[in-house]
Amino acid sequence: MTRRFSPTRLAAFVQGILEAAGTPADLAAIVADTLVDADLKGVESHGVLRVPHYLELMTEGYIKPAGRSTVVREAPTWVMVDGQQGFGHCALLNLCERVAVKAERTGVAIGGLTNTTHTGRIGWFAEKIVGRGLAIQITGGGAHRLPEHTSVAPYGGRERILSTNPITLGWPGGRFGSIIADFSTSATAEGKVRFHRERGESLPPGWILDRDGVPSTDPDALYGGGSILPMGAHKGYGLALFNEYLGGIMLGPTYEANWTVTILDPTAFGDSQVQLQDAEALLQRIKDSPAAQGYREVLLPGELEEMVARERTHTGIPVADAIWDRITEVAAGLGIPPLDE
Amino acid sequence: MTRRFSPTRLAAFVQGILEAAGTPADLAAIVADTLVDADLKGVESHGVLRVPHYLELMTEGYIKPAGRSTVVREAPTWVMVDGQQGFGHCALLNLCERVAVKAERTGVAIGGLTNTTHTGRIGWFAEKIVGRGLAIQITGGGAHRLPEHTSVAPYGGRERILSTNPITLGWPGGRFGSIIADFSTSATAEGKVRFHRERGESLPPGWILDRDGVPSTDPDALYGGGSILPMGAHKGYGLALFNEYLGGIMLGPTYEANWTVTILDPTAFGDSQVQLQDAEALLQRIKDSPAAQGYREVLLPGELEEMVARERTHTGIPVADAIWDRITEVAAGLGIPPLDE
Repeated sequence: MTRRFSPTRLAAFVQGILEAAGTPADLAAIVADTLVDADLKGVESHGVLRVPHYLELMTEGYIKPAGRSTVVREAPTWVMVDGQQGFGHCALLNLCERVAVKAERTGVAIGGLTNTTHTGRIGWFAEKIVGRGLAIQITGGGAHRLPEHTSVAPYGGRERILSTNPITLGWPGGRFGSIIADFSTSATAEGKVRFHRERGESLPPGWILDRDGVPSTDPDALYGGGSILPMGAHKGYGLALFNEYLGGIMLGPTYEANWTVTILDPTAFGDSQVQLQDAEALLQRIKDSPAAQGYREVLLPGELEEMVARERTHTGIPVADAIWDRITEVAAGLGIPPLDE
Repeated sequence: MTRRFSPTRLAAFVQGILEAAGTPADLAAIVADTLVDADLKGVESHGVLRVPHYLELMTEGYIKPAGRSTVVREAPTWVMVDGQQGFGHCALLNLCERVAVKAERTGVAIGGLTNTTHTGRIGWFAEKIVGRGLAIQITGGGAHRLPEHTSVAPYGGRERILSTNPITLGWPGGRFGSIIADFSTSATAEGKVRFHRERGESLPPGWILDRDGVPSTDPDALYGGGSILPMGAHKGYGLALFNEYLGGIMLGPTYEANWTVTILDPTAFGDSQVQLQDAEALLQRIKDSPAAQGYREVLLPGELEEMVARERTHTGIPVADAIWDRITEVAAGLGIPPLDE
């Protein structure tokens, strides 16, 4: 039912497919790396299952495979990048790296990305920047301009007006590695509702409203004109609207969603050795604390992904046959032979 | 059961009390303004009911009434302020104004506040900065070092390790005014659990765990060794830990809690007229959208507070007799005659 691949070979295979479809090698390598890393960490929704869809989007002209992001305007503390409708993975990495260099010089810097397609798993970018000893906040917004990306009601409302407007937060945790929290500001994502529907399961309470604005646990209610609730009631609503402001209003028009990246150099505020010791003391205290009913241990943000990655580094990345068959099919269409396990 | 006072007269009365207790006039005016503004907006928990407690804390030497915040270090894009254990309201205002001036020059700036006492309602600071056309994010953290401020369990855990680590987000909404979301990253605050206990009411599900880490709706369970849950499960936990990193690790040791302020000048990224038009279009669309079951209308973040303030500007600010008697008592102790309605 599943095959297993080494991360390196799987990434090379995906890179080859993207190159055969017209993506320059350096950009294809970045996209392949983010997708395979998502699978390695168990975030399959943002993994190689996206490849066939990306190829469709390239064929339709929505993703420009050779689109290379450009700097529109910049100053010592900020930069605005245009994704040129290429792979968002490459554009957002370009933005993050530019903002990081600025923050290392000035203590804090911010960047905005517009005119971009899908960016993949946002935690991947945060990990890269936190590895430099920096703290990062990434927000997405502006997709409310696109009806197909709009599924979330404002708190107290029932109309689909907002998108899942995610936020990613990362900071250096010393020997605990990068601490990465990466989540949507909605109670759930549409994909999770679909997953429950396909299995014939009802939803946990608090996820959705039906078309009349009545709370529902029936997945079909979402597809019959319902809406997804914000996470944490008015709190997630406030956060979603702030992300919407940053991405959809401050940065202007969107192609898919716009992204802001804010990076801090913590050494502006204190000694990095003391900061890392304090971080480790807090994180150790959390790890040593007893679990609540129904939990085996207390996890740090991003720890589950790291545990899965450690395992899959040894066992290989599992890919379900149904997904693998589709990838092999598009590869064959581009003249690329199948990859052995 | 309640008396009503005009905001101006109530603020002058509170200022007089604080001055009689040794607070310089300019600092006393700031504290009085934040407290009365909280009552005006219906956020009584951060209003004049705090006055008797502040006086106790001054008597104990915890709040230094003449403590005036100082700049410890600064650069063009960041500043670190020491609150000198004075009123946090004055220190945080000083910090916000300094960061705003920097952000107006450089597009983005950040500041940190340490060694401070209670700051009052954080939304008040955000409103002041958003009034200048800027966007702001304020976070609080570091109170986990003080057992009496520690009530929140990490996600999946049951030990009180974190504090309510709040976040405040503000941005300019054109004709809709300042859009201010101001919330704790925990499912509730301790004061709300106490409120339910005093009324003999059970709690909504999802607020607390009992001492064994089992979800509970019994307010007594919190006081019997229980803990408050993070808002939105792992999401609020991730946000709380990021705020903890910023306030309690990046900024270093705390006196009560530490605060970070990040301010953006949106005009770095686009034309302010277009941004305001886009903001108004989004906010109007939300206001025009139908309410969910159990709601009369869809409110914007901060709109409820503005509605209460408009009413109370006409009707006066209501203060419950029990609270008023205590304030009058401490005023009398300082030789200040009672205030007529």
